[in-house]
Amino acid sequence: ENILQVKPVIYRQITVPQHGGKDYCTDSGLVVPSVPYELHKRLLAAAERWGLSLERRLETIGVCSSQMALTLLGGPNRLTPKNVHQRPTVVLLCGPHIQGAQGISCGRHMANHEVEVILFLPNFLKMQESVTSEVNLYSRTSGKQVASVKDLPASPVDLVINCLDCHENQLLREQSWYQSAADWANKNRAPVLTIDPAVGEQCQTVEAKWTLSLGLPLPLAEAESRVYLCDIGIPKLVFQEVGIRYHSPFGCKFVIPLHSA
Amino acid sequence: ENILQVKPVIYRQITVPQHGGKDYCTDSGLVVPSVPYELHKRLLAAAERWGLSLERRLETIGVCSSQMALTLLGGPNRLTPKNVHQRPTVVLLCGPHIQGAQGISCGRHMANHEVEVILFLPNFLKMQESVTSEVNLYSRTSGKQVASVKDLPASPVDLVINCLDCHENQLLREQSWYQSAADWANKNRAPVLTIDPAVGEQCQTVEAKWTLSLGLPLPLAEAESRVYLCDIGIPKLVFQEVGIRYHSPFGCKFVIPLHSA
Repeated sequence: ENILQVKPVIYRQITVPQHGGKDYCTDSGLVVPSVPYELHKRLLAAAERWGLSLERRLETIGVCSSQMALTLLGGPNRLTPKNVHQRPTVVLLCGPHIQGAQGISCGRHMANHEVEVILFLPNFLKMQESVTSEVNLYSRTSGKQVASVKDLPASPVDLVINCLDCHENQLLREQSWYQSAADWANKNRAPVLTIDPAVGEQCQTVEAKWTLSLGLPLPLAEAESRVYLCDIGIPKLVFQEVGIRYHSPFGCKFVIPLHSA
Repeated sequence: ENILQVKPVIYRQITVPQHGGKDYCTDSGLVVPSVPYELHKRLLAAAERWGLSLERRLETIGVCSSQMALTLLGGPNRLTPKNVHQRPTVVLLCGPHIQGAQGISCGRHMANHEVEVILFLPNFLKMQESVTSEVNLYSRTSGKQVASVKDLPASPVDLVINCLDCHENQLLREQSWYQSAADWANKNRAPVLTIDPAVGEQCQTVEAKWTLSLGLPLPLAEAESRVYLCDIGIPKLVFQEVGIRYHSPFGCKFVIPLHSA
């Protein structure tokens, strides 16, 4: 007899000490739980202690989110040398915080791939260093930068990438630059990708067609968005350090779709 | 009449002030010239001055080279939750230098994706900081680390990733750890991927099936390897700063095959 013993597939490979309230699953049925913001923050801090610095994370997020965005723009069909005169236009809406820096890193990698990128970033006298250094690098691309919504295109662009929200400061939403940027996005008829969407019960100020969560999803406001998850390079034992039993749900990919479980 | 004016496609979109002696072309026919090592080094230094630090570069190279290696291992067919009991094994051969650090970053991302990684790194009292910090992060994966070739598997593994060579020090090749690692690789029957292959007329000490060049190819020893190029995130104006007129040959990808022109 030649019977292969097939072990049963375990679908719940990630268990968390505090639950964010919602389970997702991957295309192959693996369960991915959401985690509260506090636990997510401790996870990133533990990774930083081991040397996975914010700079490194910004780079991984930039590469992986731009790969996702390039696919959303049509991938190889759209971006060929023969199409160089019909380059897609992407508007990047960024606040002056880490979420904004993540967006600018994405924008640099997209501009490097010959996408027409227009970065909206409000003028502030003092910015976080992570934002300044991303802007510095971005300035070496042929992407544009504007500080006023008046300078954004009136006609629909190909994609809007939304990085206006910050997890730590919900009051931003009341500032005028925020509101005018959100209004612009909702009036422009381009589809929206939100990177690292804000937690909370408050509804999205900019309605996203797609959202990209980082590492593990946070509890998000109920919305119609299609949820994606990005591998940000955190090793298993770092998850363990904050009490998360983790097996990668990513297979060979770095960005995967999640479904409501 | 409804005639669309189609501008001719320009295939030589990258021009360099010093030529490395060999032209490559992409699948779509774009010409990619090789550059001398000195020019490549100046390009990386210019990028670092603008904030694209070694750390960032290590992360981009880790993500992109692991994506390539995961594809070489069979991609989605091989790495599914149902295949968890037949995880591929990869041996990573690293020297104590930046090329080694690049390999360790690749190894971390592969281990994060549930590949069985065995890192060979010789014992040195003093290592470059970039190597130490990569080892630190790698130690948080479930990957193994060995300092002696005796502890590497005798039976063929699925893939060997070779990062033994250093551009700055060809004498490494005469050291015993180097020679024993190269011998092991040539005896094991696994296919070899070399990341950032060494310049020079000397032949490869480890015969690679695939090589992955970073940014722009260096003049490589004639070999049978299939050459790939990795986008390491350098913006156009940084290329310009060292005299290179650059348009991305990558389309929507971060790793592309190159062919002899």
